[in-house]
Amino acid sequence: KVDGDRLWDTIMETAKIGGTPKGGICRLTLTDLDKQVRHWFRDACEAAGCEVTIDEIGNMFARRPGKDPTLPPIAMGSHLDTQPTGGKYDGIIGVLAGLEVLRTLNDSGYETNAPLEVINWTNEEGSRFAPAMLASGVFAGVFPPSYAYERTDREGKTFLEELERIGFKGEKKAGSHKFGAFFELHIEQGPILEEEEKTIGIVTGVQGMRWYEVTVTGTDSHAGSTPMRMRKDALLGASRMIAAVHEIGWAHAPDGVATVGLIESKPNSRNVIPGEVFFTVDMRHPDDAALAKMEADLRSVLFDIAMPLQLEHTIDRVWDSPAVKFDPACIDAVRQAAAAENEPAREIVSGAGHDAAYISRVAPTAMIFVPCEKGLSHNELEKAEPEHVIAGANVLLRAVLQMDAQ
Amino acid sequence: KVDGDRLWDTIMETAKIGGTPKGGICRLTLTDLDKQVRHWFRDACEAAGCEVTIDEIGNMFARRPGKDPTLPPIAMGSHLDTQPTGGKYDGIIGVLAGLEVLRTLNDSGYETNAPLEVINWTNEEGSRFAPAMLASGVFAGVFPPSYAYERTDREGKTFLEELERIGFKGEKKAGSHKFGAFFELHIEQGPILEEEEKTIGIVTGVQGMRWYEVTVTGTDSHAGSTPMRMRKDALLGASRMIAAVHEIGWAHAPDGVATVGLIESKPNSRNVIPGEVFFTVDMRHPDDAALAKMEADLRSVLFDIAMPLQLEHTIDRVWDSPAVKFDPACIDAVRQAAAAENEPAREIVSGAGHDAAYISRVAPTAMIFVPCEKGLSHNELEKAEPEHVIAGANVLLRAVLQMDAQ
Ligand SMILES: NC(=O)NCCC(=O)O
Ligand SMILES: NC(=O)NCCC(=O)O
Repeated sequence: KVDGDRLWDTIMETAKIGGTPKGGICRLTLTDLDKQVRHWFRDACEAAGCEVTIDEIGNMFARRPGKDPTLPPIAMGSHLDTQPTGGKYDGIIGVLAGLEVLRTLNDSGYETNAPLEVINWTNEEGSRFAPAMLASGVFAGVFPPSYAYERTDREGKTFLEELERIGFKGEKKAGSHKFGAFFELHIEQGPILEEEEKTIGIVTGVQGMRWYEVTVTGTDSHAGSTPMRMRKDALLGASRMIAAVHEIGWAHAPDGVATVGLIESKPNSRNVIPGEVFFTVDMRHPDDAALAKMEADLRSVLFDIAMPLQLEHTIDRVWDSPAVKFDPACIDAVRQAAAAENEPAREIVSGAGHDAAYISRVAPTAMIFVPCEKGLSHNELEKAEPEHVIAGANVLLRAVLQMDAQ
Repeated sequence: KVDGDRLWDTIMETAKIGGTPKGGICRLTLTDLDKQVRHWFRDACEAAGCEVTIDEIGNMFARRPGKDPTLPPIAMGSHLDTQPTGGKYDGIIGVLAGLEVLRTLNDSGYETNAPLEVINWTNEEGSRFAPAMLASGVFAGVFPPSYAYERTDREGKTFLEELERIGFKGEKKAGSHKFGAFFELHIEQGPILEEEEKTIGIVTGVQGMRWYEVTVTGTDSHAGSTPMRMRKDALLGASRMIAAVHEIGWAHAPDGVATVGLIESKPNSRNVIPGEVFFTVDMRHPDDAALAKMEADLRSVLFDIAMPLQLEHTIDRVWDSPAVKFDPACIDAVRQAAAAENEPAREIVSGAGHDAAYISRVAPTAMIFVPCEKGLSHNELEKAEPEHVIAGANVLLRAVLQMDAQ
């Protein structure tokens, strides 16, 4: 069993790096705060006897040797970056529980057959640099490194310059080593486990998700002297479109969801009719065909809104992450671990994206969910119970040892 | 008659300060570029033999002496600040035509009875610091200086610190001197003069206008794992509200207008349901009672939208500038000047706000409009014909001399 107090203390210690007054964390990827937590992580892993390597995309791998150095490592991990108004648990518990597993094995002098690795994936959130899961995607061969390097934040800074600036562009080629298995512990970020009073979610897969960028173009003009009949108001168009995106989500509920998370209007001046609005759309569904239907709806409905308002618009699909099914043996390892720990568990499909979704393309993979209060995540008030997180870490430990024993 | 080429050259010369690739100007109030054009203006006025004084709010007064120093000056002017995507004419021609009037009188050695003044009012646009016409409002006693000083831009910088930073906080108390009359030449910023092929608008007044700030509060949460039924999406609420504001404008068309020009969403991340949205509303009508009705509509409609979405919202009226009627004698001076110049003219009510609207509270005031292409303003492509601007400057010259002769 892991040392629960130590795990919890470690979570609370790193939560100070970028901690917000409301109790959350703002630690956007490749910022100075991300650099700080990365140094903390490297030091902590080295103190636990690991060798830490960094790949060309900033992914960090802390390795504890096993008896047989020819075996591929069994890996655990998640991400230490957060949303602008993120919580203390999203991603973080997956990395720190991995570290706790290593510390526990050290304490008991347990030697695994395969090496173990704990991983911190770069830019999982996708908030600063779209898309999400960018660096695990590179590791899995979904994107070339150059694609990641060229991503820009909303201020125009590139992923590459920021990665170099914080000193975390490593030598190692991304994806150059294989895993025997990969396990990611995460909070559910949704309401199901809590509603059903389960401690453990045996994650069988991840729903499909697509991201779009929409630009609506009208004409800047004077808010006072331009009659209603002469306006080409890009923000009016965008507003109707955002309301329509929401309707598409409802039309595909309860499985589908659709969200506009980011909007920028130009020139953004109180007495100027906006001439250009940029916004993003996030649509998800566990069924790829249904997701394709949502996209078709989006395209037709946005056209129908723009036309009568005499607005131009473009829709770019910037990300398409199809639905994922995890590896049956890894799922089984999680199921058996939960049973052995006597934790109430159920199978669940993830509504959120995770590094595990991409890693599942190159390694046998599964995930372990624990509940979070009211399903609230991407919010500074995100909350998970210590006993749930600790239970998740124990399930992780067991699942890893079981894969190692096979 | 003014020297039309000199006037046009002067307009094109100052247009370089903050000039944009699309041919407009971005010269927000109290920025370094504003400082630069203010230095240019002071130097040009001094070169024309004027004494330049600056009041505590940054308004600049360039005075050409008259025969009788006991007479209150006859004043002309407008503003040199612009919108973020502003044009080359809005405000600017009113200041530079005033300068051209002085230069013309110098050339001919004409001595007026009263002193003449050319004024550059601070922060007319209201884009960086709300509300518009802030410093002419202080001059007219509508706002105390402390109110202006405390205004903040969207980055939190105050008007006072920026005014001091650029070195334009003068000693003179705002409003400490009176005018015999005030004339402001401006582009119409609307379509009427062009549609009716008139060169001169005899402006009889300015419509009423009100500004509001709306904040909509929901709950930040995960775009992927939060079911549609559990969302409190502040951007969805704001979007429906923005569409509704537009409907209020249409319901009061053709006289009324309603606009949302500025929007900011938090945390503005692609995979986070927005928890808070701030937007502004600009509503105008020539009839104050109708404007009050528009406000009542706004309040009830926003409530009706917020409630079923379980969103909180606040509406603050941050500015109320009632409809203005200009001084009959000044209007008449403009009418006669236009007739003497043989320019086709019509009476017109301004849809845009102007410094003249506030100055009319403390001095006999009127305005002169000239057409602009397609009525387009607050746009980098804003365009006025040289012959129209020059005609406007000649009408200004005549109106000033006529008031001086009375
Ligand atoms: N787990 C998580 O919040 N990932 C961010 C990517 C997503 O939007 O699902
Ligand atoms: N003339 C002008 O554009 N003034 C700005 C104030 C306003 O009318 O919004």
